[in-house]
Parts: sequence; C-alpha cells; structure tokens
Amino acid sequence: MNKIINPDASEWTTISQRPTQSFVSIEDTVMKIFKEVRQKGDAAIIKYTSFFDGISINELKVSETEILEAIAKVPQDLKTAIQTAKSNIEAFHRAQKNGKVEIETMEGVLCWQEKRPIQKIGLYIPGGSAPLFSTVLMLAVPAKIAGCKEIVLCTPPDKNGKINPAILFAAFLCGITQIRKVGGIQAIGGMTFGTKSIPKVYKIFGPGNQFVTVAKQVATKFGVAIDMPAGPSELLVVADDTANAQFVASDLLSQAEHGTDSQVVLVSTSVKLIAEVAKEVEKQLEQLPRKEIAAKAIQNSKLIYLNSDELALDFINQYAPEHFIIAAENEQFYIDGIENAGSVFVGNYTPESAGDYASGTNHTLPTNSYAKNYSGVNLDSFLKSMTFQKITEKGIQNIGKTIEVMAEAEGLQAHKNAVTLRLNNLKKNKNGIREISTKQY
Amino acid sequence: MNKIINPDASEWTTISQRPTQSFVSIEDTVMKIFKEVRQKGDAAIIKYTSFFDGISINELKVSETEILEAIAKVPQDLKTAIQTAKSNIEAFHRAQKNGKVEIETMEGVLCWQEKRPIQKIGLYIPGGSAPLFSTVLMLAVPAKIAGCKEIVLCTPPDKNGKINPAILFAAFLCGITQIRKVGGIQAIGGMTFGTKSIPKVYKIFGPGNQFVTVAKQVATKFGVAIDMPAGPSELLVVADDTANAQFVASDLLSQAEHGTDSQVVLVSTSVKLIAEVAKEVEKQLEQLPRKEIAAKAIQNSKLIYLNSDELALDFINQYAPEHFIIAAENEQFYIDGIENAGSVFVGNYTPESAGDYASGTNHTLPTNSYAKNYSGVNLDSFLKSMTFQKITEKGIQNIGKTIEVMAEAEGLQAHKNAVTLRLNNLKKNKNGIREISTKQY
Repeated sequence: MNKIINPDASEWTTISQRPTQSFVSIEDTVMKIFKEVRQKGDAAIIKYTSFFDGISINELKVSETEILEAIAKVPQDLKTAIQTAKSNIEAFHRAQKNGKVEIETMEGVLCWQEKRPIQKIGLYIPGGSAPLFSTVLMLAVPAKIAGCKEIVLCTPPDKNGKINPAILFAAFLCGITQIRKVGGIQAIGGMTFGTKSIPKVYKIFGPGNQFVTVAKQVATKFGVAIDMPAGPSELLVVADDTANAQFVASDLLSQAEHGTDSQVVLVSTSVKLIAEVAKEVEKQLEQLPRKEIAAKAIQNSKLIYLNSDELALDFINQYAPEHFIIAAENEQFYIDGIENAGSVFVGNYTPESAGDYASGTNHTLPTNSYAKNYSGVNLDSFLKSMTFQKITEKGIQNIGKTIEVMAEAEGLQAHKNAVTLRLNNLKKNKNGIREISTKQY
Repeated sequence: MNKIINPDASEWTTISQRPTQSFVSIEDTVMKIFKEVRQKGDAAIIKYTSFFDGISINELKVSETEILEAIAKVPQDLKTAIQTAKSNIEAFHRAQKNGKVEIETMEGVLCWQEKRPIQKIGLYIPGGSAPLFSTVLMLAVPAKIAGCKEIVLCTPPDKNGKINPAILFAAFLCGITQIRKVGGIQAIGGMTFGTKSIPKVYKIFGPGNQFVTVAKQVATKFGVAIDMPAGPSELLVVADDTANAQFVASDLLSQAEHGTDSQVVLVSTSVKLIAEVAKEVEKQLEQLPRKEIAAKAIQNSKLIYLNSDELALDFINQYAPEHFIIAAENEQFYIDGIENAGSVFVGNYTPESAGDYASGTNHTLPTNSYAKNYSGVNLDSFLKSMTFQKITEKGIQNIGKTIEVMAEAEGLQAHKNAVTLRLNNLKKNKNGIREISTKQY
C-alpha cells in the first residue's frame, strides 16, 4: 500500500487518476461482431457464444423448466436472503416515485411534467467467477416499479450451457421471464439490433468486463441508451481516530477482492489509524479465498494522510469515489460537504457490502470520477421525463405577445405567425364571427 | 407534401425514419481540433475562431462593459418578453425540485437519496442566422435553480467579434457572468479540456449544427457528459375534424422554418383536414421570410391518414416525436397513451412556439426518436442523484445475516467478512468488552 503524506493540492489530479485502459483495439472487435449480429442475427450470436464461452447452444431462450429446476436448487437460506434484499431495494426505489409536477405559469397556461417508463430495456448480468444475482435485483426491481413493458435479461451460459440458479431465482422473483443465454459483446449487439431470439431494446443496463463496457459504448452510436459509462469498482474511506481499523481494513479488502484493477483509497487525518489499517489489511488478506486478486489491488491502493477534514473533503470531491465510507467523528461535515460520490456509507456499522447487497440502495454506480456528472442507477434511470402544456383562449391572450416578440427577435416569423393567427381568430370570434372548428378548451 | 393513406404497420419503420447523416468525416475533423485545443489551449481556440468564424480575436472573455452595452441595445419590449418567459420557465423548473427521499428499510437501516448539483457545466448557444437567446433561458434558468457552481456560456462571435445583445441580456438576467466568444468544435473542445480562458466542465448542454453535435458526442469519450444526442428538430401533429387547418398549417411551418432538414409530420383521421392543411401550408408559406428553408422541409414532410385514433397513437409512439401537438376531440386518449415524445402541446390554442419560448417547459428535447429513451432537459439534468445509508448496531444485527449469505453465495468472502467482523465485535461488546474506538451511532 502506498502511503502518501500531506500531498500538495497540485498533486491531487495525479493521485486521483485511475489507470487508463486502451479501448481502441477492443472497439474494432466490437464493430466486427456488431456488424455480424446485425446481418446474421442468431447465427452470429451462436457462433460467438461458442467462440467466447466455449459452449455450442442452439436455444438461447431459458425455458420455464430450466427456471423451475433452478429454483429448486437454490438453498433456502439464500432464498430468504434474496427475498429480504429484494424487499429493501423495492422499498427504497418505490419511495423515489414522483407524482405529476403541475403548475399554471400564467392564467390559462398549464404546464406539467410526467415520467413515463422506457418501454423496452435490456439487463446485462455478467457470469464468470462471481454469479452476480444481486445485480439482477438492483436492475429488475426498479425496472418493474417504473413499469417498463418489455424487459429482457442476458447472461452468459457456463461451460455446460447453464445459468447460475441464483440468477434465475432472482429473475423469477422479480417477474423477469425473458431470459437469454448470451453474454459479452454478442449479447450487447443482440439487444442493440434485435435478432430472432433477442428483442431489440431502447436502453441497456448492467456491469461487465471491458468487452461489455466497450460494446455498450459502441451501442450508443446505434441509438441505444446505456445506464452509464463503466470502469473498475472503487472505494474511498475517510477515517479518523474514532474509526475501527479492523472494520476499515475489511471494507478496503471487500473492494479489493472485486478485481486486480479495483481502486482502494483510505484518506485519514490520523497517522496512527493509517498504520493500524495497513497492518490489519495484511493480516486479513491472508485469510481470503480471493487473496491473489485482492493482493494485487491492494498493491496499487493508496493511504493518504491529510491534516484537516477540510483538505480531506476537498480531495475526496476531486477524486469523486463510486463508494464513499465515512468513519469519522465529524461525519455530518462530510455528509453535508460531499459533492461527488456514487453511494455514501455513514458510520462504523455501515460496510460497503450492505449497499452492495441489501440495505436498499442501488449498487450500480458511477466509477472513474463519473460521480461528478452521472447519477447511480435509480428509479428515474428507467423513466423518461416528458412535459405537457395546455393553453386556453385566455392563456394565449396572456402569453401571445411575449412569444410574438421573442420569435420575431430570433428571426423566426413562422413561429410568430402560429400565435398571431390564433390571436386574430379570437378577435374575430369576439366580434361575433365564431368558427365552428374552434373549440373552447 | 407526401400524402400517405393508411400505411400498413409494416411500413411504419420506413416512414418513421429520419434522414441519416454521416458523421464519420466530421469525427476526424473534431479529433484533429480537439487534439490541438488540448495541446495548445487558447492559441488553438483563436486559430479556429479565425478559420471558421472569420474573425481574429485575442480576448475570448466577454467584458462587463460589453454586457452593459448590450443591455442598453435590447429594445424594451424584448426585455419585457424575455423577463416574462424567464419567470415562467423558472416557475415550472422550480416546481420540479424534489426533497430528500428517506426511508428506514429495516429497523436501524436508514437509506436516503439526495440530488446535488453538477458543479461545473458549460452551455453552448449557437450563433448564426437565428440568435437563440431563448436557449440561454432554457439552460441557464434550471442550472441556477439546481445550484451549479461554475457555469460558462460559449457562443460564437459574429464577423465583428460581437455577440448578439439579446443573448448577453438573457445571460445577464440569469446571472451568468462567465461568457466566452467561441463557437463550433473549438468551443466544445475548450470546455472538454479547459484552456487558460475557457474552464473545463463536467457536462455540456445545448444545441448546435452537425459539427457541434459530433463534437459533443466525441467529448463524451473524454469523460464529459452531455445533455443528449441531437438531431434536426421535429414536429408531429395529430389532428381530426375539430382541428383548425390554419392553425395546424402554421404549426407545421413554424417547425419547417428551422432548417431544410426539419421533420414535419401530420397524422390525421380526417381526409378532409389533410386536404385543408395542405392547401393552407401552400398559402402561408408564400408569406414567410424564411420561405426557401421552409419549402424544402415541407417537401419532405408527410401527411399521414390513419383510420382510427388507436392506429394513430401506435404510429406516433413508434415515431417518438420531439414535439407533439394534439388537436383532436379525443385529446385525453392521446395524453394518456403517449409513451414516447419530448414535449406535448394540447389543444387548438397551444402552438409549439409557446413551448419554444415562454410557456415554461423546456425546449431542449430529444429528436430522432430518442424520445424513446431520453428525457428532455429538466431540472434533474443539472443534478446527480446520490444515495446515503447509515446503519446502527441494531441495524447491522438485523441485516447482517442477509448480507453474509448473499456475499458467500457470490463467492465474495471479503464482503462477508466486513459484516462478520462487525457482528462479532458487537457480540464481544455484549459480553462486556467494549472497544473504545467503537462509537454507538
């Protein structure tokens, strides 16, 4: 772990930098596979599934029987845990529902905003070493609350052509019935263009490796929206002498075990705590099954001493962490002052893993300092905001002149005419010549 | 105008298609200019301003004197109109403010969501034939309500190195003081990388020609967010026999005058109305100063007859118009059923130009069928949603088991450890060995 003592603000940009990845070569691969998926549909999907996942399958759709078999395989304690997590996630995301925002800006000029669901969405769930059934909950629960009509879930099959039972159980619990055995670039391509087996969607959600990440970015060139740009997961902990070094070390390691490229940072106003945490990390690391992965991430991690809460906060806002744990006496200072973070964990008894799984908040969050300009996934990610306006005869008389003057000044005469014609028509009507086709609203 | 009678649903995709533009050649130009801006800063900005705008300027910042001079030049009636529009836009966007969403998902597990402003934003206002001071209001008003700290406005200078006075007045009225005389690709590059005169921003808003559009797309590769992908402006009107053909024609033309590539569509259940509107369009077109532009857009426009409201609605949802006018007796049917539209205008006295300027709704809206997956600009466009959670000793005891079981099942032992350590610590404490460093929250 790299200890950095009182770095000058001029060094912060460098310290905050995440390792950059080169996507150029991947982009070419993505474009090639996308082209093939677009032209050949399922045939291309099956070809690349065989190539990348090492399994030849003809039926991409997961059958009802497969789902029922999977459900039977999930141990009862895991079922209960998933149900508890689901219910917390549901409660928190349901609370995010907004009603219609309605206001009469002038007499007779009624404006309102309504959020309506994105009709067709795709959820991508990675396979591989860790079967992320928790991500199924994080995406499917808000999608259902939002009211998205068509939801398809894509996840890669294992070497036997199977999907992890817990993933199928979580999907079933959320009412997701359209599940496809397909992963990687070909899955994103399938949802972008649509094939016989994979529906075309309007927005794609979910994490993935660098191939999936680049594929999602490329998909936006073809009219599909994505949840956010992705990068390796990150945690920044701010801790002072009131923090528990054991707990802090365990949080840093839970981030580090995600991948060798995970970003782990401790910012502290206490030299003593930094030393304690460093020792604890070494100790706890030894016990971990994913020790090798975690050790590599820890090698690149940073322990940063800054001599005041104010400096620490400034640095953290510049870093813009995905996950931010506050284990400091002055916690309200950090809660109030944090401008850029994905999700914030407050106090010694709030580990990041609580939010990763079960507290109710979403774990699909902006990384790589994107917390400066992107929200984490939330209910609104599945909705579009639309505006409406309805103007009465009285209303157009109130607002007409304003529009005419502005349109004229912008040199847009037809915009002005659209108002003038209506105002003239009302004048005519006032003089007794009422047009039949003109309704009073 | 192309009349299309009862097209089969299989033809709708083709009918809904907007003319595709090729961005490949532009992308190379953008990358070249971006590279130069990144390396040479203001020198590159000044070089390309001279090249594209034909004016050699050394000072990119608009001075206070220039602003005061501009204010003096704006006619009083235009000032009043801009102030009225601003106050309506302000009222509607202020109403979109959400408080903190807070919920205790389990006893001792408190989760909340807060929206915090994107700290640094850039507003792009096109120059050229129509000085879009209305767009200044549409972007600056919600940015100010959101509380964005640094707001920079870029707009190209004219041949004399000046900015349109109404643009400067609108900016002044909104409290925008950082104004830069720079347009096109170089403006977007400047805000993406930052130069001595142009601050680097986190998100760029605003319309522009195809060069600006591509530059914004490219900017996202460098970590900057943008409001939305852009395309030529569009209007779809649905009208029946209760509509006023004169009004409908004026609305179609107000869209058509934007540019030769504007998209104008009328959907109607009345053959009679279609005929009347076609005649009215020809008549009104003759009077327009921007007649040549409008005529070209009208040439590509479509008048579509569909024989039921249900079919019409289905088609409209597939088309996903940026602007959608409902001039039909059955208006509630369309209001309730519209799934994909940017902004909706209801009734005979609600022209699109009302929303373009003054009703209060935003005019920065998704085009090119992006209304299927993107919101128009609204207050949230200037905010990020962040989540927080705080778990008490009691809370971690309630939720701990759930997290442990799920983490273990995903093969993430360190995630589990972070909880187990805390639970064990509490057990120890219960047995009388209380750690000093562990606060009760």
